[in-house]
Formats: sequence, C-alpha cells, structure tokens
Amino acid sequence: MVFTAQINVMPLKDLLDPQGKAVLGGLHSLGLNNVSDVRIGKHIHLQIEALSKEEAHQIASDAAKKLLANPVMEMFEINII
Amino acid sequence: MVFTAQINVMPLKDLLDPQGKAVLGGLHSLGLNNVSDVRIGKHIHLQIEALSKEEAHQIASDAAKKLLANPVMEMFEINII
Repeated sequence: MVFTAQINVMPLKDLLDPQGKAVLGGLHSLGLNNVSDVRIGKHIHLQIEALSKEEAHQIASDAAKKLLANPVMEMFEINII
Repeated sequence: MVFTAQINVMPLKDLLDPQGKAVLGGLHSLGLNNVSDVRIGKHIHLQIEALSKEEAHQIASDAAKKLLANPVMEMFEINII
C-alpha cells in the first residue's frame, strides 16, 4: 500500500528564526499589525510504499532523522494518512 | 485573544518540484527506496491577535495571499488553533 506521510520540520522553540523575523517585518509593512510572531519551517509530503501504517511511520521517521531535519536546530512531527 | 495560525504552502500539483526531486534522490542514496515521491513546501506558524477565530482566519488568509504564497506556483491551507 502507498501511504502519504506529512512531515513538519520546525526550528526549535528556543532558537531564533531569522526568516520568520524577516517575514514578520514584511507583514507589518503591509499593514498586518495583528501578527505578533512568525516561525517558518518545512512541510514535506512523502509517498511511501509500506505494508502498514506503522512501517510507513518508521520509514518517514528514518527519512526525517537522516536527511530532512537537522536535530541540532530543528524538531519534526509526522502524520501518516 | 491570541490565535495560532498554521499555514501550509505547497507547490501546485501540476508543477515540478525540483527541491523534492533532489531530496528523493538523497533518500534513495541513503537506502530508503520505499519512498516514491517527495514534495516540499513551507510550514508557517503565525501568532495573531484577533477577536474571533474567523477574524484570525481572515488575517492569516490576507498574509498568505499578500506575502507568504505565490499564487502562480503555490497553494496554501490554513488551520487556526
């Protein structure tokens, strides 16, 4: 079966997110002053061939740990559908 | 009240995603051959000061249309929590 894994990779909460800060400045320049914080990460869709949802989750987790996320600066969460 | 908007910005389905293709090659090099397709977009968290969930959604939608997503190449979806 083919599963879709949705992986969100976000900068760790304690770290600065310069890209988010830049976008926040841009939103304020556009008049969207109600926005007080922006954090930007990656949203990744994987198509995974696996026998079960659990196996698909394991493969997605492997992919995130080995390539998609940098554990020093980023955390990730996986949702299999 | 402060709401958190989670916005996913993804490349449109009909368009090539060169970043995804590169990552797919990387995953195969690492032996993760069960992954058949990768698409990569942005995952954005906004903190929004608003009176209601609907107003927060409206502000997030404005932000996505004006700055966060390029409608020619990307689609977005918003989830307010």
